[in-house]
Amino acid sequence: MSKTETPIIILNYKTYMESTGKNAIQLSKYVQEASQETGVNMAIAPQAVDLYPIINEVDIPVYSQHMDAVSPGGHTGSTLPEAIKQVNASGTLINHSEKRMTLADIDAIVEKAKELDLVSVLCTNNVKTSAAVASFNPDFIAIEPPELIGTGIPVSKADPDVVSNSVDEIHKINKDISVLCGAGISTGEDVKAALELGSEGVLLASGIIKAEDQKQALIDLVSLI
Amino acid sequence: MSKTETPIIILNYKTYMESTGKNAIQLSKYVQEASQETGVNMAIAPQAVDLYPIINEVDIPVYSQHMDAVSPGGHTGSTLPEAIKQVNASGTLINHSEKRMTLADIDAIVEKAKELDLVSVLCTNNVKTSAAVASFNPDFIAIEPPELIGTGIPVSKADPDVVSNSVDEIHKINKDISVLCGAGISTGEDVKAALELGSEGVLLASGIIKAEDQKQALIDLVSLI
Amino acid sequence: MSKTETPIIILNYKTYMESTGKNAIQLSKYVQEASQETGVNMAIAPQAVDLYPIINEVDIPVYSQHMDAVSPGGHTGSTLPEAIKQVNASGTLINHSEKRMTLADIDAIVEKAKELDLVSVLCTNNVKTSAAVASFNPDFIAIEPPELIGTGIPVSKADPDVVSNSVDEIHKINKDISVLCGAGISTGEDVKAALELGSEGVLLASGIIKAEDQKQALIDLVSLI
Amino acid sequence: MSKTETPIIILNYKTYMESTGKNAIQLSKYVQEASQETGVNMAIAPQAVDLYPIINEVDIPVYSQHMDAVSPGGHTGSTLPEAIKQVNASGTLINHSEKRMTLADIDAIVEKAKELDLVSVLCTNNVKTSAAVASFNPDFIAIEPPELIGTGIPVSKADPDVVSNSVDEIHKINKDISVLCGAGISTGEDVKAALELGSEGVLLASGIIKAEDQKQALIDLVSLI
Repeated sequence: MSKTETPIIILNYKTYMESTGKNAIQLSKYVQEASQETGVNMAIAPQAVDLYPIINEVDIPVYSQHMDAVSPGGHTGSTLPEAIKQVNASGTLINHSEKRMTLADIDAIVEKAKELDLVSVLCTNNVKTSAAVASFNPDFIAIEPPELIGTGIPVSKADPDVVSNSVDEIHKINKDISVLCGAGISTGEDVKAALELGSEGVLLASGIIKAEDQKQALIDLVSLI
Repeated sequence: MSKTETPIIILNYKTYMESTGKNAIQLSKYVQEASQETGVNMAIAPQAVDLYPIINEVDIPVYSQHMDAVSPGGHTGSTLPEAIKQVNASGTLINHSEKRMTLADIDAIVEKAKELDLVSVLCTNNVKTSAAVASFNPDFIAIEPPELIGTGIPVSKADPDVVSNSVDEIHKINKDISVLCGAGISTGEDVKAALELGSEGVLLASGIIKAEDQKQALIDLVSLI
Repeated sequence: MSKTETPIIILNYKTYMESTGKNAIQLSKYVQEASQETGVNMAIAPQAVDLYPIINEVDIPVYSQHMDAVSPGGHTGSTLPEAIKQVNASGTLINHSEKRMTLADIDAIVEKAKELDLVSVLCTNNVKTSAAVASFNPDFIAIEPPELIGTGIPVSKADPDVVSNSVDEIHKINKDISVLCGAGISTGEDVKAALELGSEGVLLASGIIKAEDQKQALIDLVSLI
Repeated sequence: MSKTETPIIILNYKTYMESTGKNAIQLSKYVQEASQETGVNMAIAPQAVDLYPIINEVDIPVYSQHMDAVSPGGHTGSTLPEAIKQVNASGTLINHSEKRMTLADIDAIVEKAKELDLVSVLCTNNVKTSAAVASFNPDFIAIEPPELIGTGIPVSKADPDVVSNSVDEIHKINKDISVLCGAGISTGEDVKAALELGSEGVLLASGIIKAEDQKQALIDLVSLI
């Protein structure tokens, strides 16, 4: 399976205890099993500190949650793109609503991801910002209305137009960009609806991470694809 | 050697290529050897992504360069203190001049470090701010005049009073805090001068990281102690 | 009445429409009248853009809500302390919970306020941070537990110890600093309780700004002093 | 003269002492005189605190240097768009390199400027980011390579392609946007070259503000148009 094959499920581990440290490694194994059992491409975005141990345990695409737009040098506490590459991460989320970046830094970090052959998953909040960054040519644009994140109300139901219109506007500029959607996604119905709106996958977090049976929740998630 | 034994040399890896990834692991072995050969306590602060592989290779105190003042939850791209603890880091730098924090967050993160039994190395810029945070009771306060960082002009020569006055003011409030100094430190003379001013160690970066022979530079650094 | 005479009521205009532009000027006249009628010192902190017209209409202490720790130069969009002084503002809030500053910047801006003879009202969130910044020697320290701001639950009832302990700890370091409290204050009872806990005034916003009769709300506020 | 008539010279006052307070008012009169004498549209962007007194003294377009993407409410120390409008400012700079904004906030503030009928001057750093935000449809896009700001090396000489390519890319998306350029501009030759590259004006600061004779410098600036 290519690391950008779609449909794709990207699981953002955020900083939940259920997806940190030893739990993160266990969850990553569940994701790998669910991906193998269902044949659906599943990628994960753990915290920077957990990237190395996870990458050494599983063979699925592993992304960083963020990279800073800095060059090697004196930048204490920053996440250096070259360091992410050296631990063999496959890619990175960019501009997540919980880690917004300036326009100039988004541009710089998409470029840097290309230079380093890292998959770029650029997060946006509406149709207009999605269209704006399509010209940066990231691998994925993940549209997530911030007001729906963590609510359990799926974007595919609450605001289907934001998904289909983003797909249209992005593809007017660049047909090669795969559009994802996120916010409130937790069931197979949600994913099915998302794909029917023209997206090629979903970015999600608490819907799976907080599930009692994380692996089963993942299998259910892709059951209607 | 206890992880807070002084004199202590703390090497901040920042985001230099010479202290990232494979280079970071090699450098960490040099630090361990130099510490063993000289009997001087040496700690390191690599990037978050490099903590796990380094901690599995060496047996010296390993600190994070930063922790975010967030609780477990939805905080994409943040450095969760609990995640730092789970990879068995010994401690953390706090409020480095390249990663300044708000007053409220400094207080919260020193508290969190104590809860998690992590050594706290709180960085400050002058005598007044050093005195201010002494009441937070961190393990170390590292005073670094920002205008000297990376210059090669040692604080112990350029501004000896900032070191000795910080030691005095901090110890008026709490005698148990070990005071370090930093900025421009690169030679054995610099370290000797720093200790004579009442500090119990140094925090440094480029002076060692950019040295042609990093291990020898470390040995030279503590040769006059 | 001296501009730092206590008890003092400081009304933070924030960015409410009821305290912006023409409304801000009208509100400022009410504050002046309430102060004259009750004999209690009342100061106001409007938005930067409204400082000039307000200062030309009323003769009460007028503070900026914030100043940036920048020197004159190339800093587009910053609030320059010297500019605040030139419009004849009396002082400034510093480090409000909605505009937190780094420790180094708080130190710098308190110093700058002294140089410019501006009254400094330094906001803090708990006893420890209040004690920490007492060594900076601001004119006022205003303790506001952020979780109570805008709730209508007065700090003087919800957490009286945070007020009295802050007063104690601050006065151990410097008896000349007047301690204020804030968060949830809206009635004469609240203010009375705050003063009985050792504070010398209150910092408040929505409790007055959102009142149907702003002037009467101010008069009621100080009715039990 | 319409407030968006081109060619246009926009003078960013930043936080220089030469363009603060009383000096800002004097400078604004010089700009008005230079505009009247030369017939060239000249706008100014003073600090927020100086907007009111300047707008009451001169009759040229006056912009804010920044507006925060906040709605009326509890936002101490922010620059509320509605407050800028109430003092009769004509418009605002957005995303200046010294006050970068997130992508989501740039979108929100351009929308807010339109709602409030404020001219929007959106600053960008290169061709790609200029093209990206053209879909937001601001009145002006001002391209300023940050590495040239304040150098005295004019963008029109140092990097003419960035100007002409920005004009091309922006006009592919929206022909109605006027493109400005900035960074290092100080002479009539610089302005002439900028216009020949397809821009319709310049955004500049120190080249005029630091001039010995500010008014003459302005007249010289447009002498070759």
